[in-house]
Order: sequence, then structure tokens, then C-alpha cells
Amino acid sequence: MASNRKKKKTLRTVHVNAGAGYDILIDPGILAYTGEYAAQVCPDAEKAAVLCDRNAFFPHAEPVEGDLYDAGFSCVQLLLEPGEEHKDLAAYSEILAFLADQRITRDDVVVAMGGGVTGDMAGFAAATYLRGLAYIQIPTTLLAMVDSSVGGKTAIDLPAGKNMAGAFCQPALVLCDPDVLKTLPERYFVDGCAEVIKYGVLYSREFFDELKDAAAVKKNLASVIETCVTMKRDAVEQDEFDRGERKKLNLGHTVGHAIEHLSGYKEGHGHAVAAGMAIIARAAAKKGYLSREDARAIEEKLEAFGLPAGTDFSAEELAKAAMADKKASQRAIDLIVPREIGACDIVRIDIAELQDWIEAGLK
Amino acid sequence: MASNRKKKKTLRTVHVNAGAGYDILIDPGILAYTGEYAAQVCPDAEKAAVLCDRNAFFPHAEPVEGDLYDAGFSCVQLLLEPGEEHKDLAAYSEILAFLADQRITRDDVVVAMGGGVTGDMAGFAAATYLRGLAYIQIPTTLLAMVDSSVGGKTAIDLPAGKNMAGAFCQPALVLCDPDVLKTLPERYFVDGCAEVIKYGVLYSREFFDELKDAAAVKKNLASVIETCVTMKRDAVEQDEFDRGERKKLNLGHTVGHAIEHLSGYKEGHGHAVAAGMAIIARAAAKKGYLSREDARAIEEKLEAFGLPAGTDFSAEELAKAAMADKKASQRAIDLIVPREIGACDIVRIDIAELQDWIEAGLK
Repeated sequence: MASNRKKKKTLRTVHVNAGAGYDILIDPGILAYTGEYAAQVCPDAEKAAVLCDRNAFFPHAEPVEGDLYDAGFSCVQLLLEPGEEHKDLAAYSEILAFLADQRITRDDVVVAMGGGVTGDMAGFAAATYLRGLAYIQIPTTLLAMVDSSVGGKTAIDLPAGKNMAGAFCQPALVLCDPDVLKTLPERYFVDGCAEVIKYGVLYSREFFDELKDAAAVKKNLASVIETCVTMKRDAVEQDEFDRGERKKLNLGHTVGHAIEHLSGYKEGHGHAVAAGMAIIARAAAKKGYLSREDARAIEEKLEAFGLPAGTDFSAEELAKAAMADKKASQRAIDLIVPREIGACDIVRIDIAELQDWIEAGLK
Repeated sequence: MASNRKKKKTLRTVHVNAGAGYDILIDPGILAYTGEYAAQVCPDAEKAAVLCDRNAFFPHAEPVEGDLYDAGFSCVQLLLEPGEEHKDLAAYSEILAFLADQRITRDDVVVAMGGGVTGDMAGFAAATYLRGLAYIQIPTTLLAMVDSSVGGKTAIDLPAGKNMAGAFCQPALVLCDPDVLKTLPERYFVDGCAEVIKYGVLYSREFFDELKDAAAVKKNLASVIETCVTMKRDAVEQDEFDRGERKKLNLGHTVGHAIEHLSGYKEGHGHAVAAGMAIIARAAAKKGYLSREDARAIEEKLEAFGLPAGTDFSAEELAKAAMADKKASQRAIDLIVPREIGACDIVRIDIAELQDWIEAGLK
């Protein structure tokens, strides 16, 4: 597909050496150049199948589809319902039927546009339709930009648990446009900030210290996103299939997933992870892994962003929910435990100890 | 998992350099050593989830599961209905629910035991449950041994067409036990012979000439299977993702798939491919690609096996059915055309020419 249109200079590019290798492009306004970039990575595609989060449609789909059209693609579009409860086999089946009805071929491209639910599910459909075709992630929430759109983990939920069917399948391209976050409701922006803070706790005290509050992050958005995806990129490149180093990205997630589950997914992912991080930080301090000062700093940081640093669920409820998807014979669980701000360890504990850890971390 | 049991010497091993690399072991009686081999390739597995074709269950599941048990695995079992009409999203969903209910983890192993339908579907479930766990293929039909169990193409059908959702995911091991074919009804054995003959037409006149009839193949089964999977291995290693050389394995399949579809999948895959090969061979002879002697030899070979060398469907019906899953804008199609017995070309023709090719090949 040829195009004579101008090409925008991209200020921030993070290259990921996983799968066939791909770029994450971060730039305000970049979505107006979607067609240009899509044509570069999918030169043989005739059609772009835009799988769009219903929440992202009104503000953002028109410029994206308009530019795809200008670059020579014919566009077809399916709106997806956001919300974890829609990330299921029924929706997956609907996407596959749509792609087949539209006669999308292996040379064509899927554009997954929306939050984490849309990206995970559209990515899984793209990974498996005709045994896989190229897909482009256009995350429209901060959470999706710094977390789920990078690294190629695609999935749907099963009745038995979250993300239980899926594929490791890297995208062909990720476009992060910080401008789209201007229309994101504040609660969702703050939700994404929990994962931003997580990167500071995991990898860099300097980055952690720079994060003052949500307003400050907003002023410096492209840079913050670039820092986070670079950190995630490094983890993914070391351990694409999540057997070792990549597991550290689960900081706060053991308890966080339990909170999400117990709340019936009413609690946002970031909010639940924030509470999970605070709990594990306090427990780590009590057990001598982390200084009390650093544990307190993590709590205060979360509070400065309006994120929860605790939960009303009991340690027993949380431990039980956290173990719900583990095998009956499982004896041990890997906890991600901060040693200091900027460095965490994978600590294998006996499952019998989990409730005690959580108890130690509850306020 | 430790085991002190004796290890059987395997006479025929074909190693495949695709995915993480794996062996195809071919030996009469090898299924009685399934546990031993499974423990070698999946040392951390505690459970084996045996997904077993209902047709294969009675004669073959007991020794396999008994040996898995002896090797220290705990076994859980799900019976699958054979037949293309069951290779669908509903059955896939049922398998995923079963694996979740049984708390199968990423360290465990799936054992896919049966014909091509079971192998394709169980393989796809294994490729996607928890984003993928190891699976072992135990093909119980000749067709599955020489074709679908090798190469990592897993899939289910969609209402829109065959194999339209799936993954390229190589197995951890393939065990081919020629003894299991003793209980296979003659019609199914002959069905598999069509794919055996295909390898001769594709790659070796010498192998083609050695194939006298079904009874002769039976006498020499392990050697014939080894030759076929070695040829398929070579194609898969050159082109794992089916973009070039591997496409040659589709010899006879363009028309064959059309016949299967038009018959409502009452015609066996091998029988349909046999007719497809005969049709393309005669067309190739008329168009000057292939000598009339070689075209006649292909027809006679199929007839010697009791396979069809033609069809009652019209060229118009066949061309229409063959194009049903192609995109509307598609201008060209790749036909696999024999140049001589033992060598075929990928010939790109205009889709408008397809009906003429088929017409030329009908008796």
C-alpha cells in the first residue's frame, strides 16, 4: 500500500524485542497518523478491522478510521462493550464471527482500540482468527497504555477465573496518544496511576519520587508513559512467557486480584492493585524485608493520588480468594515483596503463610 | 518426577525443529510407555489431562492412562465426540471449563488422543488454556499420524468455515503407535492412505512406486509413517507459519475441501483429497504441466487403494465452494500443481480460471 502523505516525526519510540519485534510510539496527536503507521507495519493489508471499546468510540474512532481510510485501508468496525464482565467466550465468539463475515484475511490487520478489556480480547481474537493476523494496539486508558497494551498477553476470562484462556502474541505496533486521556474520567485516570506507581516501587526510587500526584502526572504524561513502557519492555524482553523476571510485574496483584474478585469487579483494577501494594509493603516492613520509612512512603504516595492504601475485606477472605484459582496440591506461592523502593524480590512462601502475610499488612 | 521403570528403545524418531523442538516417536506398542516419555518432556507436571476421542477410548485409553499413572501422573479424562461437526466453539469451551474445573496448571500436560478432529481441538485448547501448556499428540488414525498431529496447526471450525480459529503451537511430543491402526475400520485406514499417496506425488516417485495398495501399506506401516512425517517435518521446518513451501501440503485440498463442504462433511477428508488430487492431476496434464502417463499413474494409484479419482459435483459447484471462504476482492489463488510424480509447483492463477481448471480435471 503506497502513500504519499506526510509522516509525522515521533518523539518517543520504545522498541520491543519480542515476537517479531515492534515499536511503541508515544506522542500527543499520533492517532491522526494511524493509517500511515499501519501501512508501514502491514503493507499487504487491504482491510482494517477496528474493534473498538464503546467508551472510546465517540471521541476517538473517527480520526483513527478517517486516517486509515486516507491511507488506503477499507475499514470495518465492531463496537465492544467495556467491562470485565464482557471479556468472555461469548464476546470472543462474536468477534470471530464478525471477522469471518467481513472476510478478513491473514494479510489484513486488526486495530484494537480501547481499555484493557478491549485490548486483551481483541488481541486474543487477532492471535487466533485464521491462526493469527497482525494487530495494532491503541490503548485509550492510562492503565492500558502503561500495562496491558505492551507485552503481548492476550486473554479472555472463563467462569473459573480471569485471563484463563489466551495467547502470548505480540502486537505489530502500539500507538499511545496521551491526548486521548484528556477525555478519560478522573477515576479511570487515577486507576491507571496505581500501575505507574508500581513501576516506581519495582524499578526506580527516582521515578517514584518524581510522581507527586495525578495532576503532576498529567502535566508530564508522555514522559511518564515512556518510562513505564520502557520498564515493562525490559521485563518482557527478559522473560516473554512469564516464567521468571516478568512475574515481578505482579507486585500488589495477589491481594489486588482477590479484592477485585471479592468486589465482583466493581473495584477498579488499579485501585485494587494499590491496596494490594500497600498491604504487601506493610507486611514486608513487619517481616523485616522493607524499612518502615519506605512502607510509609508507598502508603503516602498512593494516598496522594487518591488511591486506597487498604481494604475492608478480612485477611481470611482475601487469602481464600487469592488461592481460589490455584491447584489443590499447590504448596507454595510466589509473592512479589519490596526490599526497598526501586527493588523487589520474588519470595516463595508456603501457602499456609499467605493469610498471615495479609494479616500483617492490613492496617 | 522420578521413575525407575525400564525405558523402551524407540526404533524410529523424527525430530522437528519448530517451536521449542520435539520428537515424533514411531513404534508398535509405544503407547504402553506413554508415561515414561511424558515425564521426560514435562518433568514438572503432576496431572495429565487426557482429552480422548470417544472412538479411541475403548481400545486405547486404558493402557495410556495406566502407564501415565505408573509414571506418577494423576490422570483426569474428558471424552470428545469425533466428527467435524463437533470441532466447534461449544466443544472448545467445554474443554476449557474441564481444564479449569480440574485445576490444571501451566506445569501440567494435555494428552490429545484420537483422530484429527480431537488433535486439532485439544491442541487449540492446550495452546490457549492459561495462555498455553504442553501437549502430547497421540494420533489414533493413519490420517492424523501422517498429517494433522505433526506441525502444530491447531484449530476449531467456525460457522463460516473450517479451521478458522486456531493457533500455530507445536506439541511437546508425538507418539505414533502403528498397532492402534489394527482396530481402525478399513474405510478410515484407506482415508489416511490418500494423504500417504499425496507425499509420494509431492516429494518422491520412489516412495510413490512403493505404495502398492492398502494391504501392502499395512505390512510396512511404521516405515511408511516415518517417511511421511519426515517429509512433512521438512516442509514445516522450512515454513512453520504456512506462508510458502508448507502450502504444497495442500495438494488436492482446494477441490478436496470443496467436496467435503458440498457433501456436508459426509465424505472423509482423505477421500475428498484423493478426488481433488486426481482432478488437479488430469487438469495439469491437459494444460501441459504434467505428462499424461503421470496423471494416469496417480489415478490408478488412488483406484488401487479404493479411493475415488473423481466426483459427481459440477465444476461450477466446486469452484463456488472453493472460493466461499476467500475475500471478495481476492484476484488470485495458489494451486498446487504436479509437474511430475515427486515434484509439484505453487501456481498462482486468477480466480476466474479456477472453474476452468476444475472442468479440465473432471473425468
